[in-house]
Amino acid sequence: MKISQLSQAAGVSPATVKYYTREGLVPAGKRTGYNQTEYDDGHVARLRLIRALIEVGSLSVATTRDILKAIDDPQLPLGALLGEAQKAGTQERQGNPSDRSMARVESVMQARGWKTHPGNPGIQLAAGVLDAYDSIGRPDLADTLPRYAEAADIVAKADLDAVERSGDRDRMAEAVIVGTALGDTLLAGLRRIAQESQSVRRYPHAARNSQEREAR
Amino acid sequence: MKISQLSQAAGVSPATVKYYTREGLVPAGKRTGYNQTEYDDGHVARLRLIRALIEVGSLSVATTRDILKAIDDPQLPLGALLGEAQKAGTQERQGNPSDRSMARVESVMQARGWKTHPGNPGIQLAAGVLDAYDSIGRPDLADTLPRYAEAADIVAKADLDAVERSGDRDRMAEAVIVGTALGDTLLAGLRRIAQESQSVRRYPHAARNSQEREAR
Repeated sequence: MKISQLSQAAGVSPATVKYYTREGLVPAGKRTGYNQTEYDDGHVARLRLIRALIEVGSLSVATTRDILKAIDDPQLPLGALLGEAQKAGTQERQGNPSDRSMARVESVMQARGWKTHPGNPGIQLAAGVLDAYDSIGRPDLADTLPRYAEAADIVAKADLDAVERSGDRDRMAEAVIVGTALGDTLLAGLRRIAQESQSVRRYPHAARNSQEREAR
Repeated sequence: MKISQLSQAAGVSPATVKYYTREGLVPAGKRTGYNQTEYDDGHVARLRLIRALIEVGSLSVATTRDILKAIDDPQLPLGALLGEAQKAGTQERQGNPSDRSMARVESVMQARGWKTHPGNPGIQLAAGVLDAYDSIGRPDLADTLPRYAEAADIVAKADLDAVERSGDRDRMAEAVIVGTALGDTLLAGLRRIAQESQSVRRYPHAARNSQEREAR
């Protein structure tokens, strides 16, 4: 198909197709003549995947490129692919978390029987949040940690089950990548629904007030 | 205190202090003479809160300003403040989610007995992820939905408990804002730890492989 058809099928502009190709996210099409390039269904699928990661998962172009490189390497074991996928949404932090916060995360890991290698990006990410709670004088907010960990366990099991159900290696790899990147967004969405629902249940009057404001 | 002392106490550069003041995130200091401005502990606390929201919670400056405006309005009921806080991390999407995905989110809401007003930003956010799963030909990934919702419920209850334990209105408001914005990050971190732990448990060989790669 031509670039105009590819663009329509994948829902991205021709300029964006060219940009992603230049950036190495999409393989180049096949040159079939002067100023003419042929694309196939593989290009459509790849562009849709990129859109999902960037527009819905809020990944950067650079992170998306790294992840696609990992997905395209058939030698890479799924465990290592999970490691790559986990870096998504884990932007580099300046400075290291405090020992105190690292110890709190490790203690919740111990309580849940979690075992990972020390480089797991989630450890620093979680400890950084505890440091932020401390920095604003609200260490009490970290009391939510055990219940957050319980929730994370439920989600992680669902994630790994979805990978296992996927079938062949390529589809498993895709489930790892997409599930990790977009799962954060799905969970953030459901959390907001559940929060308001809890709030309505606990403070029926305040919630009605909020609805009225919304309606104005 | 002088701007240099404020800068040191809050951990942001003097240029950043001036930038946040210009943008209306921090109240101006008190002019005490030519080219001299006095700041107080309130400025330190406000700057630390801003750092936590922007650097750890990844909020934009514009979103942070909106949220601080809500926190500073003593007339705003907590339910409405929660509404403001929930918009954080919920960037505007182009286009509406499909009816099919909206119906799937509504069915999981019904199953959990969740009630919100229709404008809850989490509904569109979650439905957008389901659309993305569909767009890449992986509607099966949405089978995680009921367990994600179970996890979201646990987190939301922990969130509201943390707000209730906070004491006075100002501290409750702070817990709503900070807990909502940074809680997503905390949960994402714990999820990554739990995922690797699940992966190690299920595929001991693949996980060792991943550790070896990390060590090289």
